[in-house]
Amino acid sequence: MTHRIAVIPGDGIGQEVTPAAVEVLDALDIEFDFVEGDAGDATKAETGEALPQDTRELARGADATLFGAAGETAADVILPLREVVGSFANVRPAVSYPGLDAVQPDTDLVFIRENTEGVYSGIESEIADGVTTLTRVITEDASRDIAEFGFEYAETNGYDDVTIAHKANVMRETDGLFLETAEAVAEERGAEYDTALMDALAMHLITHPEDYGVVICPNLAGDMLSDLAAGLVGGLGLLPSANVGSENALFEPVHGSAPDIAGEGVANPTAMILSAAMMLDHLGYGEDGDRVRDATEAVLDAGPRTPDLGGDASTEDVTAAIIERL
Amino acid sequence: MTHRIAVIPGDGIGQEVTPAAVEVLDALDIEFDFVEGDAGDATKAETGEALPQDTRELARGADATLFGAAGETAADVILPLREVVGSFANVRPAVSYPGLDAVQPDTDLVFIRENTEGVYSGIESEIADGVTTLTRVITEDASRDIAEFGFEYAETNGYDDVTIAHKANVMRETDGLFLETAEAVAEERGAEYDTALMDALAMHLITHPEDYGVVICPNLAGDMLSDLAAGLVGGLGLLPSANVGSENALFEPVHGSAPDIAGEGVANPTAMILSAAMMLDHLGYGEDGDRVRDATEAVLDAGPRTPDLGGDASTEDVTAAIIERL
Ligand SMILES: CC(C)[C@H](C(=O)O)[C@@H](O)C(=O)O
Ligand SMILES: CC(C)[C@H](C(=O)O)[C@@H](O)C(=O)O
Repeated sequence: MTHRIAVIPGDGIGQEVTPAAVEVLDALDIEFDFVEGDAGDATKAETGEALPQDTRELARGADATLFGAAGETAADVILPLREVVGSFANVRPAVSYPGLDAVQPDTDLVFIRENTEGVYSGIESEIADGVTTLTRVITEDASRDIAEFGFEYAETNGYDDVTIAHKANVMRETDGLFLETAEAVAEERGAEYDTALMDALAMHLITHPEDYGVVICPNLAGDMLSDLAAGLVGGLGLLPSANVGSENALFEPVHGSAPDIAGEGVANPTAMILSAAMMLDHLGYGEDGDRVRDATEAVLDAGPRTPDLGGDASTEDVTAAIIERL
Repeated sequence: MTHRIAVIPGDGIGQEVTPAAVEVLDALDIEFDFVEGDAGDATKAETGEALPQDTRELARGADATLFGAAGETAADVILPLREVVGSFANVRPAVSYPGLDAVQPDTDLVFIRENTEGVYSGIESEIADGVTTLTRVITEDASRDIAEFGFEYAETNGYDDVTIAHKANVMRETDGLFLETAEAVAEERGAEYDTALMDALAMHLITHPEDYGVVICPNLAGDMLSDLAAGLVGGLGLLPSANVGSENALFEPVHGSAPDIAGEGVANPTAMILSAAMMLDHLGYGEDGDRVRDATEAVLDAGPRTPDLGGDASTEDVTAAIIERL
């Protein structure tokens, strides 16, 4: 069976790390049909749209999508793409690797970020001159879906600690519903869990990341906390993510298009290649996913390394080294 | 002239660190009239209200208020108290001290947090079964006030780097207005500044805190980012804060009531004493504020230290040592 993969490199280093991930996938014994789509700043400049209709169709119809990064138009690309693939869960692992200079070398976290609501509702208006409002939406259904996904993920992946992040002391109705629903899911499953106010959690994750495992979060809290965790493990160049839907899914590095280094061929392909590994898991090739992760970790440990990790290797050097170790 | 200071110890370690700060203030040559008010969990259990009317009046009528901490009722105490004193700006310095085991020893940050709106509007409802909403409010007036305060603070206190934090790529109208207004203030003042998406900022603050100084933030972003900074400098036990209003102000440690160690007499009084130092600045006793800060820093460096900093001293030991060095 051939898997149809939509490949959307986007802008900046997206154009460099996405082909690197495709090369790694090509080196496996799996048949993929890669179909490329356009999106991002350059596409908008050309066509007037950051995410043209045919790229949406491509992602909708594919078994999975690999997305690189977009520049100024990032929100116009990634938010609708998440919707197109029906993604309700954003999975963001943040692991520190031995040998790399991490702020906290004992970090092994996975953020399970709600991917459809919260302040991402898009419902905003200027209700009077100089007065604007945004409607933050939290539903029981979406809270239940993300909590079930999170506890299931923890169980499948051997994480003992599950934390439900919230700010229900201030957002009493909305985060109150999120918290209450997630707690009900935990009770139903007989699962152990903790709850944490997201501000206090931000502090504890920095001082004691080893106390945490899976963190189930509302949308924006997950956005911030996962970037915070990127800071702990040594930067955005390492963090992959999966936007999981009920049928379809999209995989992307947590980093952006990095215009400062784009075009130089030195972007760190790790986050993108690890995103491809998450795609392999999702498509049912968990063993191949492990092979890619093992090879990538070995290269992170022994080198070659790109400049963001203190090395002077190119994207291509790192990719070739990973392929060699597969 | 005698200054009337409302003292609201609250719950847990609030009952221990607040008297410590009062002791330090008493050791200075300034005439204070300290009047104590009740608030918090214990007060609610007794009177049915976490923040009784006469405590509100006390804070409203005082020249300044010192607040310790509250337990479960924290939001019911601190949010109305901030309103009572007309506070629009929450000032949260996070500085790492030499000799302490900080995650990032080069941290010298001040968060200037908008203190009246954002998701703290209190406008929430269940609009249908299992569907809740919260109205996030951002106004031009409040954004202008906090930006002016922030740039003024940076200038007065010698900070070169000012960063405006936002998430205007997603919250286009609301954070768009915040960002645009803050940028307009900077232009009017001819001040240098940077802007940063708050997720990316969370990461960069962890890896490179030395690149930042004053950070002007919407309400919830300031809540999370300042707790994050607490993680960088070694914990909440060190962080003071000022809730500044146009006439009146309230000073409180960033930490909570710490029920796990309450009653043992080992709470770290540093955050509360440094909050009292911020009060001294506010009342026009900047030199005394500096004396308190210098004495506190000397004790942080040389000891005695409470258990949260690896020592075995009591609250009273640390307080006495600070007073001795004044
Ligand atoms: C680009 C932006 C809309 C996006 C988000 O906020 O989700 C990004 O920060 C991310 O985390 O993928
Ligand atoms: C207790 C809570 C309402 C409060 C806040 O969110 O402002 C606290 O976290 C703080 O930062 O002072």
